[in-house]
Amino acid sequence: MPSYTAPVDDMQFLLHEVLEVSRSDVPGYDELEPDFTRAVLEEAGKISSEVLAPLNMVGDREGCRLENGVVRTPTGFREAFEQMREGGWTALDCDPEYGGQGMPYILNTAVNEMFVSANMAFNMYQGLTHGAYSTIHAHGTDEQKRLFLPKMVTCEWGGTMNLTEPHCGTDLGLLRTRAEPQEDGSYKITGTKIFISAGDHDLTENVIHLVLARIPGAPAGTKGISLFIVPKIKVNEDGTLGERNGVSVGKLEEKMGIHGNSTCVMNYDGATGYLLGEENKGMRAMFTMMNEARMGVGLQGYAEAEAAYQNAVSYARERLQGRAVTGPANPEGPADPIIVHPDVRRSLMDQKSFIEAARALVYWGANLIDRGHKLGDKDAEGLISLITPVIKGFLTDRGFDMTVQAQQIYGGHGYIEETGMPQFVRDARITMIYEGANGIQALDLVGRKLAQDGGKHIMAFFEMVKGFIKENDGNEALKDDFLEPLKAASKDLQAAGMFFMQNGMQNPNAALAGSYDFMHLFGHTVLGLMWARMAKAAHEALEAGTGNADFYKSKITTGRYYMARHLPMTRTHLARIQSGADPVMSLPEDQF
Amino acid sequence: MPSYTAPVDDMQFLLHEVLEVSRSDVPGYDELEPDFTRAVLEEAGKISSEVLAPLNMVGDREGCRLENGVVRTPTGFREAFEQMREGGWTALDCDPEYGGQGMPYILNTAVNEMFVSANMAFNMYQGLTHGAYSTIHAHGTDEQKRLFLPKMVTCEWGGTMNLTEPHCGTDLGLLRTRAEPQEDGSYKITGTKIFISAGDHDLTENVIHLVLARIPGAPAGTKGISLFIVPKIKVNEDGTLGERNGVSVGKLEEKMGIHGNSTCVMNYDGATGYLLGEENKGMRAMFTMMNEARMGVGLQGYAEAEAAYQNAVSYARERLQGRAVTGPANPEGPADPIIVHPDVRRSLMDQKSFIEAARALVYWGANLIDRGHKLGDKDAEGLISLITPVIKGFLTDRGFDMTVQAQQIYGGHGYIEETGMPQFVRDARITMIYEGANGIQALDLVGRKLAQDGGKHIMAFFEMVKGFIKENDGNEALKDDFLEPLKAASKDLQAAGMFFMQNGMQNPNAALAGSYDFMHLFGHTVLGLMWARMAKAAHEALEAGTGNADFYKSKITTGRYYMARHLPMTRTHLARIQSGADPVMSLPEDQF
Repeated sequence: MPSYTAPVDDMQFLLHEVLEVSRSDVPGYDELEPDFTRAVLEEAGKISSEVLAPLNMVGDREGCRLENGVVRTPTGFREAFEQMREGGWTALDCDPEYGGQGMPYILNTAVNEMFVSANMAFNMYQGLTHGAYSTIHAHGTDEQKRLFLPKMVTCEWGGTMNLTEPHCGTDLGLLRTRAEPQEDGSYKITGTKIFISAGDHDLTENVIHLVLARIPGAPAGTKGISLFIVPKIKVNEDGTLGERNGVSVGKLEEKMGIHGNSTCVMNYDGATGYLLGEENKGMRAMFTMMNEARMGVGLQGYAEAEAAYQNAVSYARERLQGRAVTGPANPEGPADPIIVHPDVRRSLMDQKSFIEAARALVYWGANLIDRGHKLGDKDAEGLISLITPVIKGFLTDRGFDMTVQAQQIYGGHGYIEETGMPQFVRDARITMIYEGANGIQALDLVGRKLAQDGGKHIMAFFEMVKGFIKENDGNEALKDDFLEPLKAASKDLQAAGMFFMQNGMQNPNAALAGSYDFMHLFGHTVLGLMWARMAKAAHEALEAGTGNADFYKSKITTGRYYMARHLPMTRTHLARIQSGADPVMSLPEDQF
Repeated sequence: MPSYTAPVDDMQFLLHEVLEVSRSDVPGYDELEPDFTRAVLEEAGKISSEVLAPLNMVGDREGCRLENGVVRTPTGFREAFEQMREGGWTALDCDPEYGGQGMPYILNTAVNEMFVSANMAFNMYQGLTHGAYSTIHAHGTDEQKRLFLPKMVTCEWGGTMNLTEPHCGTDLGLLRTRAEPQEDGSYKITGTKIFISAGDHDLTENVIHLVLARIPGAPAGTKGISLFIVPKIKVNEDGTLGERNGVSVGKLEEKMGIHGNSTCVMNYDGATGYLLGEENKGMRAMFTMMNEARMGVGLQGYAEAEAAYQNAVSYARERLQGRAVTGPANPEGPADPIIVHPDVRRSLMDQKSFIEAARALVYWGANLIDRGHKLGDKDAEGLISLITPVIKGFLTDRGFDMTVQAQQIYGGHGYIEETGMPQFVRDARITMIYEGANGIQALDLVGRKLAQDGGKHIMAFFEMVKGFIKENDGNEALKDDFLEPLKAASKDLQAAGMFFMQNGMQNPNAALAGSYDFMHLFGHTVLGLMWARMAKAAHEALEAGTGNADFYKSKITTGRYYMARHLPMTRTHLARIQSGADPVMSLPEDQF
């Protein structure tokens, strides 16, 4: 069975040496002293290794069951969920006014990474609750907040998001679920929603569904969509549970992975719902949840890869097969461990160098979100808005590839379910699909985010890269291995943006045909920036002679690998983008 | 449920317009007139669509069962297998002396592609039998051939290959299975073999296992391994079945995919075996089977992608979501079919342009094999020996990626098992692993094949590319879109080879660290050559005004896509290779 150990040192390095959180001006960050964060991370790591990881394969094998209209989660999930609640892990960054601990989002992000690595399907129950909490917190009335938030902070009640219908996923303008206004100010919700993660389960006493629906007479398309709170069990004014609402599970989907999470068809049959936010402004409110979810899914991308990587490393150290080409490394044994073979190392380095930079990107993103929320920093908000589709799309594409590479290290054994390696691949596969399939992320990036606020945020990103390179101009330790490749990647990214500007106006397909490549080109460039920053911090620590020198040297070595072997992808992405719309669009449709 | 339609026109185009088989000097090719091959392919296509494809999901869902020591295949497999046998499909290219039809291997390859696309797990039963047939045919005594081949040609008896043991996969030198010589000239085989595809089943009355084992006193390592014929049920001298042999199924593996095929742990407990070929020359004999199997696995790589692609195209035509950025394409409907969106087309073109070139490569490879077998053409043998690891490694890596892309077209629906899309991905995943994991293919290519016969075969490949470019020098229709990109790719491949020559001697890790990238760089270059050849044939047909002009134009458009958007990968692979061993090898092992 696979195991998982939380990479606390790597996390501490990012928080304190790269992002220097405790020296930041973000309110609440002053609490994030190294000793404090280490204590929190070690405790979360312990639960991850000892409670959540052992249930990961159990969840996969047993899956969820629909019994008399109620979903039963796999063996052990209830007890583990109870433990998470009792430890306060569900409330870490929630508003103290509703019982939360008020910690910064960045700390929650690091903790969340561990829970995802240990058991992604399990963690989705509280992840979705957190998303629903945030949406009600941002858009709810005081009464709604008072009534729902305290129980969602503690995860006594769960939460979900209900967007998709059988005939509409990406194109929400087509949605048909109806919300009929009632005399008491509530609505009757009727319709069918599909792919509802954690749609029903036995971990909480109630489930609070956030449901997109259309009020009769509303404008067509997305401008006529409103958001509603629809509890599974109605809630009395005093907060106690009332009678069952008109919502039921139509079906439990049989999926490729994340079997431990219940993916439901939800039927709303005149269910009582309460308008959340303004009428016909449901999309805007839902985006609160969706942006949080997209960051979370990007995190899942590399967190699954981390878990798979750890096990691949163990296997590569133990499995004896063949001899090192430079002479036996284990002359007493029948063969050498396969980690001596260059191609095995190539694969492990691919994984390691991606995962560590992906983590840096997501923590930096969390830092930007904290800046936006707590300092009202508009530049930070603009930047994270730009980067969110890259985090979601690029990190999940590459994260999935890395789980496949980790599985590959096992040879034939990796194809056997018993080893747990297929599960990492099957589970990771969903991250490329849900919360907006990655093609939609690319469209969002190129079609919306690039030009947002007059292109201000992408310019800010380029300035940031340029600034870093200039600032470290005389740093010989960084120059060849980090600054030069970063400069080249950034130049490719700028050239791609220029191509879109010159061609996209007269032919939008010229930009959209290159959108997917642009997302990856951006992803590699920003991970290159992350490595340059990490290498700088590691060099500084080495010069100062603080801490574990081997750790810092490994950071630099791993970063050099990324720059030398991942970053050259930018040139291929640019060449594809510059080939324009014609190769993509010119085949007649009937010739596919 | 997914469906499959055999791409007969594409196959005919390759056989008759690109490879021009009926004009070839290979004995037997004169029979391959267009009308004849079309009749065979259409008949095989019918069985594939109507008999095999409908059983694909059945096989996945039911899997195999081990009942009282006997493996039961899924519902319908027995009847379908019977139909395959009765139609003579198992005997197509087998030796007429033993009941085969004596058709060229290239025709068998095209037919086999269909069977794999329709139902890969099912087709493995006869595929492995064919491999065992070939090995006995090449290395058996007359008596062994007389006794075993006729029943294997008709698939009344099945065949398997038994290499792997729990502690040894790639490194067969470690194997422990013993073969004790008996007075009657037979051997007693004792040991455990794992991952034995089609190891036992109820489709045939007997299973002929080919087993690698060590005779006491044999030299250590691979030089002391012999190959044995070990029937599940002993065969009397008159060919009738005798008593049960000492071989049994220890376990049926639970795998990520190919559930319809039985992957067994086989226990040999003093089983009677017969030496096949010479003592201690078992590895050489087994390579007959392995080379055939590697070609077959490369074929599986693109054949699975073809099946997934066909369904992705159907879905992209039917699913209505969003509007074309250039204006509604389906103004009467609620939305446009998603095939109008540039990124959906980008993905479909990725798939289509890869699959068609991969098919061309495998058919060309089959042609080289026929030349070797039937004309004794040593150059052809050398070339296919060089290209086999590329076919196996590159086509399965990229083929898997393409099944993932096809699944992605379905959005959330692609993650639901009911659509059949996850099965394509799960099944395709094994092709990167079995018959030598792809890292081993890369090692074989760079560590062995490049330098084989003094580097003669890679030089022949470069000459072939150069010759094609020169020969078509004045062809303006090919110049910019095909010849220039092919020239650039070939230059990158030569530069990579040069880097290995200059650095590999003093530091073998410098070559091996780049082996995987070299395999892909080679793969893209040779697919580029395939597209240049196909484009040339299509242009000639257009000029001659024969056939369906739309078909030929589509070939050229699809080829242009490959050259413009896949081929730029060569520059990234070269950059990675040229970064050398240092980034890959310099992290201390304890820092992973």
